[in-house]
Amino acid sequence: MSERAPASAGGLLVSGCDVLRVPPEGECEILRAQDIVVADGLIEDVRPTGTAGAKGGAGTREVIDGRGLLAVPGLVNAHTHSAMVLMRGAAEDVTVEGWFNDRVWPMESNLTPADVRTGARLACAEMIRSGVTTFADHYFFPDQIAEAVAETGLRADIAPTYFSSRGREALEATVEFAERWHGGAEGRVTVSLGPHAPYTVDDEDLRTLSEHARRLGLRMHIHAAEHLEQTRSSLERRGLTPVRVLYETGVLEAGALIAHGCGIVEQDLPLLAEYAGTTAVACCPKVYLKHALSPLTPVRELLGAGVTVAVGTDGAAGHNTLDVWEALRLVALTQKQAVRDATWMTVSDTLRLALRGGARALGLQDRIGALEPGMRADIVLTDLTGLHCRPLHDPRAALVYSARASDVRTVVVDGRVLMRDGRLLTVDEPALLAEADARVARILDTSHGRAVQHYDP
Amino acid sequence: MSERAPASAGGLLVSGCDVLRVPPEGECEILRAQDIVVADGLIEDVRPTGTAGAKGGAGTREVIDGRGLLAVPGLVNAHTHSAMVLMRGAAEDVTVEGWFNDRVWPMESNLTPADVRTGARLACAEMIRSGVTTFADHYFFPDQIAEAVAETGLRADIAPTYFSSRGREALEATVEFAERWHGGAEGRVTVSLGPHAPYTVDDEDLRTLSEHARRLGLRMHIHAAEHLEQTRSSLERRGLTPVRVLYETGVLEAGALIAHGCGIVEQDLPLLAEYAGTTAVACCPKVYLKHALSPLTPVRELLGAGVTVAVGTDGAAGHNTLDVWEALRLVALTQKQAVRDATWMTVSDTLRLALRGGARALGLQDRIGALEPGMRADIVLTDLTGLHCRPLHDPRAALVYSARASDVRTVVVDGRVLMRDGRLLTVDEPALLAEADARVARILDTSHGRAVQHYDP
Repeated sequence: MSERAPASAGGLLVSGCDVLRVPPEGECEILRAQDIVVADGLIEDVRPTGTAGAKGGAGTREVIDGRGLLAVPGLVNAHTHSAMVLMRGAAEDVTVEGWFNDRVWPMESNLTPADVRTGARLACAEMIRSGVTTFADHYFFPDQIAEAVAETGLRADIAPTYFSSRGREALEATVEFAERWHGGAEGRVTVSLGPHAPYTVDDEDLRTLSEHARRLGLRMHIHAAEHLEQTRSSLERRGLTPVRVLYETGVLEAGALIAHGCGIVEQDLPLLAEYAGTTAVACCPKVYLKHALSPLTPVRELLGAGVTVAVGTDGAAGHNTLDVWEALRLVALTQKQAVRDATWMTVSDTLRLALRGGARALGLQDRIGALEPGMRADIVLTDLTGLHCRPLHDPRAALVYSARASDVRTVVVDGRVLMRDGRLLTVDEPALLAEADARVARILDTSHGRAVQHYDP
Repeated sequence: MSERAPASAGGLLVSGCDVLRVPPEGECEILRAQDIVVADGLIEDVRPTGTAGAKGGAGTREVIDGRGLLAVPGLVNAHTHSAMVLMRGAAEDVTVEGWFNDRVWPMESNLTPADVRTGARLACAEMIRSGVTTFADHYFFPDQIAEAVAETGLRADIAPTYFSSRGREALEATVEFAERWHGGAEGRVTVSLGPHAPYTVDDEDLRTLSEHARRLGLRMHIHAAEHLEQTRSSLERRGLTPVRVLYETGVLEAGALIAHGCGIVEQDLPLLAEYAGTTAVACCPKVYLKHALSPLTPVRELLGAGVTVAVGTDGAAGHNTLDVWEALRLVALTQKQAVRDATWMTVSDTLRLALRGGARALGLQDRIGALEPGMRADIVLTDLTGLHCRPLHDPRAALVYSARASDVRTVVVDGRVLMRDGRLLTVDEPALLAEADARVARILDTSHGRAVQHYDP
């Protein structure tokens, strides 16, 4: 069933599509009837369809008929744990503590490298299907994830999860992974260092990892201030907020992608603002609602401090899907309610957060997040002709409030077609699903009483 | 492109499907490999596949191969304004007041009966596609809606919207509509009386309509206590909460489906409890979030008072879709957060709310809401084999947290197949979409300055 995507050596032309333009500020726009010209994995030109003047027109171009479709920049999933798709739906209706200590961390102690390999490929396949072209992963057995990314053609920033309980050798292994894989898969894989959280990684390890990050030119990806109780607990135990711990241990200086940040408080804002250019917070509202958390990520305050905010799904053991459409819609909905202002987090702002914000959050703003000449050709063709989008007064509103992952038709990453008209070209879906199903019973068995860690932030 | 569904005179057999059982209390269950036997629009039997003992087996049965699919009771959209699909995406990022006074009520003043006819058919088509088999509608030109329901084969309770500003003749017209259509379309259409809200319908009209409802054995469908500011305003202006107005004018006594109820306060609970057996509240969280409202419908308190709660989408001018999967997921997510309890509004409770609650909310609990012998055959076959649902540890969790409307394959109402394997059988989709598109520019034009009403609750 699998079929290799052609290498597109002669380039790619997506013809006749509408194009979503996401400017750095102001309203997003729809450019009608455009051609997107791709060469060597880069967007060479976006121009009215059929107009002359293609540069580098030599060679055979693969052509995708984009008529009737809207091209959007590939979505960015700014925080996930890819292989947790294997535990999708296996930890419902439990408290945060129960989720970690009774379900997920015991299940994760069952994971083998082969499990993660299968889980990561399954996650990649799900993300390709839903128009996610880049993801920020944070997980165990990162080599398996990197190989899945290389194989499926996606783009990812991979942070190997590290707990201090794993010891110095494990810390060094994460650094070695970074040295091995940063810039790999033709540049589609980048690596961040991934201390799990300030409550599971001690200050000394945070300092060591920050130093490695600065030395190697890497960013950090870490859970911090996941909810307000964590911040309060940190203040009680050690007199510092989690964000101040990141500040004092050099994590913010290295450049940090902070997962969640629902417990970021006012005193944290100046610390974050000091490194605003290289700091981002990934907001994953579905899991906050599901875990009954309040408040949510203080998006307005963070943007006000100049900090980048992006959209993530977290792992599918909490979020149940890796669907960034669902996640960005929830960011818009929950943020409007959180600040009691229906005119805020507009359609354009939400798309900008998800796309430009996602790119910045991974340090990839010069490569992805917009369909413009010079950017990598990460292109998603969406079909907004379904009944749930009609009449289509405003395609931008449809993207935020009506569209579904199933409206994605064709996905291109780095100029390579990964899904064409609903058909995955780099994944053997039935074989992969059979492999995943075969692993499940063992992974879900928690009768052994082990766990990767105990949750007590 | 249209194709009439056969009359299924000889009955219907859905063979080999799994079946979602939603008990009145406790955990929902998945019955594996069942046959659903349908005769004369009723479920005659649900039994392990291939077992003998079909009653009424004479005649030719239409067979649907249900293997690999999960049969769920048809979803109920407990509050919508069907024809507002015509305004989908045309009122974004505005306050509640702006939404009513600058956008929706001016646009609605453009609507003709032919517009509503098209809009209602478009809404029916969208709902069939997403597995909604029954909806509670509240809108203008109700004859057009009833005809759309009759034609497309759905089931609906239709409340003709009434404002006191329309005058006594309009009130009487709504009663005449009820007399004409209640029990129509082979019993698939029921009618409720539809005073818009206590802030747009005066007490005398509420009393008159309540009397008509009691006389005719109809229920009432009304917006009330939509948000807390409305309740406060009502208390200031007249010393009564909106729910007390319903109580004193006989609306609760007649039996009421209350839309939204986010502004229901503690003093309202005993009033609602007095008529708990015939009172329901439709919760439509996407629009509350989008309009930045807080608090949300007090679902826990209402259920505690014995009042039925159901799930709705409201009109697509606010909700952007008529997708009840999306709505029920948001009920689970937002209610967990609202009461700060992740163990509440469980997967089973959410499904029960949407299905059994939906049926009760429309007074149809003896006909729909469960796949059991004696119930009308409103059956939705869902395909949970997509990547976003895999591995499928728990189909119940997948329904609430992973499934999409696009996972619906086949839809049966009253034993008649309305969609088969993704193909609509009672709607000419391209013709309908062309008709809708042709009407849009005129409907969206608000340069005339008219409005159906002024919002000032």
